[in-house]
Amino acid sequence: MAAKAPFKRSAMKLHARKLKVALIQKQYSHDSASNIAANSEAIHDAAHSGAKLVILPELHNSQYFCQTENIKCFDIAETIPGPSTRLYGHLARKLKIVLVCSLFEKRATGLYHNTAVALDKDGSIAGRYRKMHIPDDPGYYEKFYFTPGDLGFKPIKTSVGNLGVMVCWDQWYPEAARLMALAGADMLIYPTAIGWNSHDKPDEQDRQMDAWTTIQRSHAIANGLHVLSVNRTGTERATASKSKIDFWGSSFVAGPQGELIARAIASKEETLIAELDLDRSETVRRAWPFLRDRRIDEYNGLDRRFLT
Amino acid sequence: MAAKAPFKRSAMKLHARKLKVALIQKQYSHDSASNIAANSEAIHDAAHSGAKLVILPELHNSQYFCQTENIKCFDIAETIPGPSTRLYGHLARKLKIVLVCSLFEKRATGLYHNTAVALDKDGSIAGRYRKMHIPDDPGYYEKFYFTPGDLGFKPIKTSVGNLGVMVCWDQWYPEAARLMALAGADMLIYPTAIGWNSHDKPDEQDRQMDAWTTIQRSHAIANGLHVLSVNRTGTERATASKSKIDFWGSSFVAGPQGELIARAIASKEETLIAELDLDRSETVRRAWPFLRDRRIDEYNGLDRRFLT
Repeated sequence: MAAKAPFKRSAMKLHARKLKVALIQKQYSHDSASNIAANSEAIHDAAHSGAKLVILPELHNSQYFCQTENIKCFDIAETIPGPSTRLYGHLARKLKIVLVCSLFEKRATGLYHNTAVALDKDGSIAGRYRKMHIPDDPGYYEKFYFTPGDLGFKPIKTSVGNLGVMVCWDQWYPEAARLMALAGADMLIYPTAIGWNSHDKPDEQDRQMDAWTTIQRSHAIANGLHVLSVNRTGTERATASKSKIDFWGSSFVAGPQGELIARAIASKEETLIAELDLDRSETVRRAWPFLRDRRIDEYNGLDRRFLT
Repeated sequence: MAAKAPFKRSAMKLHARKLKVALIQKQYSHDSASNIAANSEAIHDAAHSGAKLVILPELHNSQYFCQTENIKCFDIAETIPGPSTRLYGHLARKLKIVLVCSLFEKRATGLYHNTAVALDKDGSIAGRYRKMHIPDDPGYYEKFYFTPGDLGFKPIKTSVGNLGVMVCWDQWYPEAARLMALAGADMLIYPTAIGWNSHDKPDEQDRQMDAWTTIQRSHAIANGLHVLSVNRTGTERATASKSKIDFWGSSFVAGPQGELIARAIASKEETLIAELDLDRSETVRRAWPFLRDRRIDEYNGLDRRFLT
């Protein structure tokens, strides 16, 4: 596959479609009020740096409560619209930014989702995405808390583009990224909360973080889209058990060929600012026309559990 | 996602399922006879090194003729079974190896495929795979030569396992890798012929090769399988045009977490030997149970061209 030199488009367009984004990588405490205050401060700083799209990590109002199965944790769930969409919507309007939040949604009594919400620059709820793939492994007991989403893989239309927002475990599924791309996403966005178990040896830790980066970069490549992945950082200890997670930070922005455009460090808070050139998708999809050649006549097994 | 320490299985199994493989990365000339002789020599060497599965690059009997559209090139196509399956089948039987070949298949007058064939250690044809995704871009005019495959994504059952053999352009499609995995592939194998256009600048060349590596490693990760990718190397100039391709070699073996186990250099011939621990897929799929959580109830758009 050779890259082809595209025709110069400069005569045809006056403005490149650039978008400055901010990925807020934070460490969270047991105190929700202070988490929200810290998020608010970071959002202000990001907006003052010129970011027009600001993204917070998964479930950013609290510590990652899924380390244990604790029925009291449902107390922190909230409706959408609700207190958080009001608070963060106010910020989005005040700062004239699009803000992607990640909330523990109470949909009905006994029915909860892990939900991302995009708030537009007028403060309105542009749309929501309910996490579709729900993990469950030691320290990540999400199947206890979250019903799998039922809204499908639909980009959220905002004033800065169609946002292919998904959440954490979704990032391991090429099907999810592809469906977002086919539905017209301009970029893929993953708020996430992922880290190391202290029992893992360094080589296993390296493989895990590298795999996490690689699979998300591959979604950029397969679909010719930018990928924005926002993780939390720092160590969180579960109060009711000996469990702890070292969240590995390393939030990143990849371009439409999977190239790393910006990357945060692993172990500290950081607001990662990057400028996306949204016209790159056009150039890359012309040179690598993967969408042209999909064998849709032969993909019917993908909606089966297994084929043997 | 924390890795979990699996139970020790040593008491339950006497032999780990190890498999020594050889990836033959070669440069090819205009002379088919010498290409075949060179392949044969490399296959002998690989077998003598203990490899039980040997893989050749895409269309290894000739130079990469798809640099131009030349109707005379159809002369080198052959039937399957045919001369090459006899010749390489003889080698496979003599050396007691499974050998993956890549041939220009003449299926009928005017009907041709880019076909991989697995020859088992008794010399028989274990099965074939007809390249499903066919590229077409400057220097890679494959749509002129090859009808897209109609055999689907089905692993080839051999004495060393179920081989998820695909070919080159297929490597950019997560759908293909997933379907092979769902159909019970024990590993994914990509004979390929990919290189740089001399017009590409170094940074573009880097992005291309890195993307090529990354997307294939992502198939290993998404499916918990080894990936074996075998490329040709060296520069080939098209006789009828000024076109040339610098094939970038860099054949590699990735483990089920996408980790690079072995990698060839870019610019020289090399027979890459690696030992696969096939039990790793069991361990990795337990720790990363992606197949468990696929949202097959929501994947129905994947067999559509686009969703808007």
